[in-house]
Amino acid sequence: MIYDSIIIGSGIAGASAAMNLKIRNKSFLIFGSPSFNTKAIKAEQILNYPGMPGINGQQLSDAVFEHLKQMGITVTDLKINGVFYYNDTWHITSGMQMFEARTVILATGVEFSNPLEGEQALVGMGVSYCATCDGMLYKDKDVAVIATSADAEKEMLYLSEIASHISYMPTYPLKNNFDDRDNLTIYKDRPQAILGDNTVTGVRLKSGEDVSADGVFILKDAISPSTLVYGLETDGRHIIVDRQMRTNLEGCFACGDCTGRPYQYVKAAGEGNIAAHSAIEYLAKII
Amino acid sequence: MIYDSIIIGSGIAGASAAMNLKIRNKSFLIFGSPSFNTKAIKAEQILNYPGMPGINGQQLSDAVFEHLKQMGITVTDLKINGVFYYNDTWHITSGMQMFEARTVILATGVEFSNPLEGEQALVGMGVSYCATCDGMLYKDKDVAVIATSADAEKEMLYLSEIASHISYMPTYPLKNNFDDRDNLTIYKDRPQAILGDNTVTGVRLKSGEDVSADGVFILKDAISPSTLVYGLETDGRHIIVDRQMRTNLEGCFACGDCTGRPYQYVKAAGEGNIAAHSAIEYLAKII
Repeated sequence: MIYDSIIIGSGIAGASAAMNLKIRNKSFLIFGSPSFNTKAIKAEQILNYPGMPGINGQQLSDAVFEHLKQMGITVTDLKINGVFYYNDTWHITSGMQMFEARTVILATGVEFSNPLEGEQALVGMGVSYCATCDGMLYKDKDVAVIATSADAEKEMLYLSEIASHISYMPTYPLKNNFDDRDNLTIYKDRPQAILGDNTVTGVRLKSGEDVSADGVFILKDAISPSTLVYGLETDGRHIIVDRQMRTNLEGCFACGDCTGRPYQYVKAAGEGNIAAHSAIEYLAKII
Repeated sequence: MIYDSIIIGSGIAGASAAMNLKIRNKSFLIFGSPSFNTKAIKAEQILNYPGMPGINGQQLSDAVFEHLKQMGITVTDLKINGVFYYNDTWHITSGMQMFEARTVILATGVEFSNPLEGEQALVGMGVSYCATCDGMLYKDKDVAVIATSADAEKEMLYLSEIASHISYMPTYPLKNNFDDRDNLTIYKDRPQAILGDNTVTGVRLKSGEDVSADGVFILKDAISPSTLVYGLETDGRHIIVDRQMRTNLEGCFACGDCTGRPYQYVKAAGEGNIAAHSAIEYLAKII
């Protein structure tokens, strides 16, 4: 099946886009988590989401997911690791799974951390951003996992079932206790560089200690858009879009934090609305 | 006093902008009505305002105005009839009153009707868009009032206290009964043209009948932006803005329906957020 659209990301931008595709009877999938990400949920008080004074991040997440549920929209909990245009169709991959759509709406959020030394040079040569996509490549091997939020812990546990040993390097305060896992070492020191020439050999910590590994998973809330989508024009961390939320690629739209500041809920929601309308307009032209 | 900002319009775009100026401790005024306009309030079901499934226009208006109230923001119920930049400051006029600000945020909505024949040529020569601003010019004179929504009825009654006679030409179904007014004639036929060479002499109706008048008030929910702001770049009915909601004029920002489609609540709210952030950024540079 070729969908009318695929939305990548289930923050408020992606959710807003989904609502509009649904209203207009388009066929679509929305990939993401079943709630906002940790950072968004932890917002203690949101003063400027018009109509919902003083709501907090958890409440807004609950309200938006309840809204999706009432409209019969289900978020597919899969991480996407590749988006490319081929044979007049967008192809969206999650590990071994592939989905096809006429349009794609990127609502991937923004990642605040800078790439580590050596990270970009070793993408696909031992550096991966998706445990469910690439985990099986590391069966019975030693793996390092660098994680920026508690959302990554589930993926790390999945990897620990496959790999022989996990060196876990969280850059956030641990949410769960993993004392029962015997193939897991937790490092409190921050990672500084990915080591290796043509293939990953390990991770150097800030202290100077080197931890050896056959592969490194870097689990962030958002993957860099230019890593995700081949040929996408970006400006630093942000996808370049016009006022209609069109990217430089035909049929590819973007919305929310991934398009730039201000990083605000209602700005993201508004852009999701625009992106969906632009996708619908584009579909009317090509079909 | 010179305000940091003045917002023109209290729909959801203007309200959203106001919330952000308040959070950032800026001094500002917001001009508009104490609720959304008639068209916005009549929305029976809004499916795509994320977090508030199936709300109607009245409920969203109430929620947003309650939100403003909780933040201590008061909407000033004045119609604005001129915006111009002079001596490094924005000057905003409402009849004889003038307000000064370092930035201006236009959130004036969009007017769907086309200008009448003769309307644009006679602006300031008998054609006016603001009863409270120009009403006193027509003391004891004959005035025609063309109105596109019930929001205009209050202004029309104000004019009927000043003028000797009102020819009222509503293009919407009347909300109130004005049987008790003896200096008021209500026309059911639609206006077609404003008559007069260098000054207004009357209004021609679709039937061909000419109604004589010394002035014509055209009361719409939104005034055309290029009529309101001297030198503002527009594209048809829409103000041209960039992704930061900046217009072609320094310190002048715009948001909501006046910047173009889609005409959607959450798009307008998102743009209000962006416009306020851009105004704040601009203020940081100039002060």
